[in-house]
Amino acid sequence: MNLNESLLLINEKVRSLKKYHLEPEISSIKLNQNENPFDWPMEIKKEIAQFCVSRPWNRYPNFVPDQLQEKLSQYTKVPKSGILVGNGSNEMLLVLLLSLANTARNVIICQPTFTVYRLLATGLGATERSVGLNADLTFNIPDIVSCSKQYPGSVLILCSPNNPTGSVLSESDVKTILAEHNGFCILDQAYIEFGGYNAIELLDKFPNLIITRTFSKAFGGAGLRLGYMLGNPEIVSQINKIKLPYNVNFFSEHVAQTLLSHTSTVEKQVEFLINQRDDLLSFLNSLPLDNVYPSSANFIMFRCREKQALFDNCKQNGILIRDVSSYPLCENCLRVNVGTEQENSAFKKVLKNFFA
Amino acid sequence: MNLNESLLLINEKVRSLKKYHLEPEISSIKLNQNENPFDWPMEIKKEIAQFCVSRPWNRYPNFVPDQLQEKLSQYTKVPKSGILVGNGSNEMLLVLLLSLANTARNVIICQPTFTVYRLLATGLGATERSVGLNADLTFNIPDIVSCSKQYPGSVLILCSPNNPTGSVLSESDVKTILAEHNGFCILDQAYIEFGGYNAIELLDKFPNLIITRTFSKAFGGAGLRLGYMLGNPEIVSQINKIKLPYNVNFFSEHVAQTLLSHTSTVEKQVEFLINQRDDLLSFLNSLPLDNVYPSSANFIMFRCREKQALFDNCKQNGILIRDVSSYPLCENCLRVNVGTEQENSAFKKVLKNFFA
Repeated sequence: MNLNESLLLINEKVRSLKKYHLEPEISSIKLNQNENPFDWPMEIKKEIAQFCVSRPWNRYPNFVPDQLQEKLSQYTKVPKSGILVGNGSNEMLLVLLLSLANTARNVIICQPTFTVYRLLATGLGATERSVGLNADLTFNIPDIVSCSKQYPGSVLILCSPNNPTGSVLSESDVKTILAEHNGFCILDQAYIEFGGYNAIELLDKFPNLIITRTFSKAFGGAGLRLGYMLGNPEIVSQINKIKLPYNVNFFSEHVAQTLLSHTSTVEKQVEFLINQRDDLLSFLNSLPLDNVYPSSANFIMFRCREKQALFDNCKQNGILIRDVSSYPLCENCLRVNVGTEQENSAFKKVLKNFFA
Repeated sequence: MNLNESLLLINEKVRSLKKYHLEPEISSIKLNQNENPFDWPMEIKKEIAQFCVSRPWNRYPNFVPDQLQEKLSQYTKVPKSGILVGNGSNEMLLVLLLSLANTARNVIICQPTFTVYRLLATGLGATERSVGLNADLTFNIPDIVSCSKQYPGSVLILCSPNNPTGSVLSESDVKTILAEHNGFCILDQAYIEFGGYNAIELLDKFPNLIITRTFSKAFGGAGLRLGYMLGNPEIVSQINKIKLPYNVNFFSEHVAQTLLSHTSTVEKQVEFLINQRDDLLSFLNSLPLDNVYPSSANFIMFRCREKQALFDNCKQNGILIRDVSSYPLCENCLRVNVGTEQENSAFKKVLKNFFA
């Protein structure tokens, strides 16, 4: 078989995907990936490094990451059997769509949102049904419900707080949607520690609800690639069948379970980052921008007709933010995440000068 | 939606899967997972632990694991653009089947073999076409070729050296199959360092050939969950589209690239393990077993009508081996991997006493 014949045997859906790509750029201040700006304290890192040295690398991880699931159960109040862990919430989303969305099924996605949903839904051969956010980029609940009714049995993916807009679903929004939706609902709460309605209490009542969460944001562990899903134990047990065995390496597993013993550190950082976010929101609102969107996450999206000049100006000043202008409804939009006090001040200074 | 309605919305193919399960058992001598019995030297582990402490955990890994791909390219002589890394070769297999096997496609699997192939093919909705090994558990080349002709466009998965039998495909076997096969061929060479024909040189000629490899066996890094695929750069670039971004954590990435600077350590261990395997083969052949299968890997499969008693006897003596009797054609079969000299002696002693 030659190359062209081989290429044609690759699933058409995969071939037609646009490559998810992020140009590696180096800046001294990195406000483009919604990371927590704080690394873990040296003493905790050293303690874990000690474990790493003593743990044999030639041995597989545990078949079930029992201790980590136990710690997550204490943290979330979801029974251990309703928890699965994986390499970022990305792996959880993949496993969920493999289990819940076959080629004949519709996947409802509220746009604009995290691009991996569309990548996976399309790549797996499902049909994406888009529901736009409102003009002010809040969730359009009537449209979501009506799309859900139009496609019964569909998988509905919701992200709250939503990336890149920062919008949230309220308690009554989630309840309204779940009362009507006849299919699975995947609720991505990667940013839940920063605000918005935490829907864990609804898992008991709605077996069709699955929540995904991550260590990459509030928990300051983006380097670990560790995420998890929460759901009804019987549902999770089915989804577990298609999850790859030994998916998580011993290091990430051990770090995650250690970090869960230090949630007060996370809480303090989150409190600080929320204050900084609100301060940054007020600041952005004082500038001649076209729109500044309220945010319940650790980032803020804003619209600026001079977005390219502003983006470049930040970069020239050593600050990397994210251009999200190619997302639906996001023309001329930029996204900046909250950093340390110094980083936020530097960013504010650049903007002040830019608009001066 | 209630629980039963929800369960019915999970893909039937996933629901019908048998759970891949390994009962966690603790024994002082572990010869059941084909691991390398040697951990990495303390000085290398400490050097990496040092890196771990200094590397910020709150930051994402590189978008492309450039240095690791570079090192793998030097090691395999495959261009960097023909290499993808993931969480074990398992993730590579998943991504490959997502890209190459849509629901309408046939996946040819030579049984008995690694169970994850069937799990993924079935779970993803492809149709498994089984080709049995010969009665002596060597590959049946005419049957593979004839099945390939019966299902043009199918994905053919070959494992050489094969788990759990240890059988290998020769150079001419691989060439015969590839000359005839009209579809993709995934060649899993997880155990290639221990023996058999390394097919890398064929990648240039056959764009429909993909080789998967791992750090879990000869490289003594099962705890890292790090695997990779090698293929034609244009094909790999398409498959890369459905691979999740940031799939590998910084620790496994860094360890793997460090280990690739110490391949002479691996080579020495492999030489030792091959000698021990051949010694163990002679020993097993001297016992009144029903069959002992020649092996080019770091494990040996043998058939014993008293397999349960033998398995239990090993366990009572602190030695864990693997019962593979539920695999096709493997009635009464056990698999043991080569350990340290002490471990192999202990195993031999138990067997000697058992048959005395």
